[in-house]
Amino acid sequence: MNTQHVRICEVGPRDGLQIASQMMPTDTKLRWIRQLAAAGLREIEVGSFVPPRLVPQMADTAAVVAGALGIEGLTVCALAANLKGAIAAYEAGVHVLAIPISVSDSHSRANTNKSTDDQLDVVSAIVDWVRAQPRPMRIDAAAATAFGCSMEGDVALERVVRVARALAGSGVDAVALADTVGYAHPAQIRSVVRAVQDAIGAKLVKLHLHDTMGLGLANALAGLDEGIRSFDSCLAGLGGCPFAPGASGNVVTEDLVFMLESMNYPTGIDLKKLLAARALLAQALPQETLRSGVAAAGIPKTFHPRTALVG
Amino acid sequence: MNTQHVRICEVGPRDGLQIASQMMPTDTKLRWIRQLAAAGLREIEVGSFVPPRLVPQMADTAAVVAGALGIEGLTVCALAANLKGAIAAYEAGVHVLAIPISVSDSHSRANTNKSTDDQLDVVSAIVDWVRAQPRPMRIDAAAATAFGCSMEGDVALERVVRVARALAGSGVDAVALADTVGYAHPAQIRSVVRAVQDAIGAKLVKLHLHDTMGLGLANALAGLDEGIRSFDSCLAGLGGCPFAPGASGNVVTEDLVFMLESMNYPTGIDLKKLLAARALLAQALPQETLRSGVAAAGIPKTFHPRTALVG
Repeated sequence: MNTQHVRICEVGPRDGLQIASQMMPTDTKLRWIRQLAAAGLREIEVGSFVPPRLVPQMADTAAVVAGALGIEGLTVCALAANLKGAIAAYEAGVHVLAIPISVSDSHSRANTNKSTDDQLDVVSAIVDWVRAQPRPMRIDAAAATAFGCSMEGDVALERVVRVARALAGSGVDAVALADTVGYAHPAQIRSVVRAVQDAIGAKLVKLHLHDTMGLGLANALAGLDEGIRSFDSCLAGLGGCPFAPGASGNVVTEDLVFMLESMNYPTGIDLKKLLAARALLAQALPQETLRSGVAAAGIPKTFHPRTALVG
Repeated sequence: MNTQHVRICEVGPRDGLQIASQMMPTDTKLRWIRQLAAAGLREIEVGSFVPPRLVPQMADTAAVVAGALGIEGLTVCALAANLKGAIAAYEAGVHVLAIPISVSDSHSRANTNKSTDDQLDVVSAIVDWVRAQPRPMRIDAAAATAFGCSMEGDVALERVVRVARALAGSGVDAVALADTVGYAHPAQIRSVVRAVQDAIGAKLVKLHLHDTMGLGLANALAGLDEGIRSFDSCLAGLGGCPFAPGASGNVVTEDLVFMLESMNYPTGIDLKKLLAARALLAQALPQETLRSGVAAAGIPKTFHPRTALVG
């Protein structure tokens, strides 16, 4: 019997809200984050330090971080794509900084206005700056479009490996592979994860998966099979990608938790409480489609969560 | 590189339509079946021989079978749950008879008004009758609720194995395991498939999966890993289960084909033509939700179908 803990990082307040058509007020974000934490989520990406004119939904991230830091036991994550944002994240007091870097040059330029190589330099500069500060801050780098790009199509495995190696070499704490546009399939997850593990070992920590083609959980399963024990996901499968029209959002946290707990991987998350946190979303984001098989059908009698067993 | 062919049996015209709120006229069913066959589906469950007062949508199954038999290269399947239905299927000329038998006694009584053991006797009687006829007809038995039951909850593995063994012993050509209400998870798929393979070997041929909890494709992947090379699915994920309220339907054929072809398992199916067959569904069943990630997002640039390569 497998009993390895799987860590889920809820990215809804960042990845989910950044492309939502409605703005969520700061106090609503914080009520939502508190509900997620109460359901057992120990790591939440609460926002991003990016120019408000580009992503107005994230303009209040410093205030959201300040509120989230008051939640006991919660690891507060935020995203920043450049040094200015990283400094703001540090000053706001975040525990974990997530830095995106696109393996696809075209996506990199569209997303951060920099080539992949130039963004690698940005990551190095951020790491150097953070390491020179008195307070430690974990740095996670996310290799975006690692499984395909809506602009370039296929992304060469050699390029993914090169970026992962450069990120590990720059001194980040952890590397995530992101299927930003949701084109990955399970065989690809396996081969890319193996190649990156061969290159950087345990520095490859996490997968960030989207459910564009309906393969999100199948891809998570393939990652699990390769030893991945950390995943990003969004409550109700919010999110998406501005460069993948028609795409549904991130892997659905509720369904991922259902799968993991059913398979005897404890997540520390109470599925009932997690489902209850959807009510706030339905109210605050009436125009968004809230997905989740488990939410639609209800938790079945056959569900025997692992987390309940371990306390 | 894996190059094993995977056989998909489209069950939309039976499992998809039987709980649809609208009736589909016979000629529309046949237009749809012709489109599916033109997309490369070589096996289609076109209807069921069940009392029309119980399932009025299937009242025209003999006529649908007659039309489908005119499609070159198509293996025409139909479902029947008792000898009377099996005789009607034989007389209609179907190539493959699918017989359901619920592993859960409660579901068996609700579905066929018989206990599991009594339904096993029905299967034996059908096999004996069919084998005494001049024309051969393949007989597939589907062990329903093999992964859980909305009424009974957990279904004991020993019971699944006992039913599978009895089915194999009765002389059916193939056994399928059905996650009728969609409660299965990948670890369970693996353990049940292995146990049934240990009991009946290659007589276990197929999985019939539902997407209730969003785990349909993850479960298909688990089955693939255990050597399963045949799956039921429904275009647009139609279907569902009258005993699992809120449940979404069967595994989505389009997304399953996308996953398999991406993973280098040829299916013989042309994904573009398959997606085109949704238009008829949208028109004929305006009240049904047509699912599919691939349909919503479009076929990505990164899709390199295996079927195109093998011709």
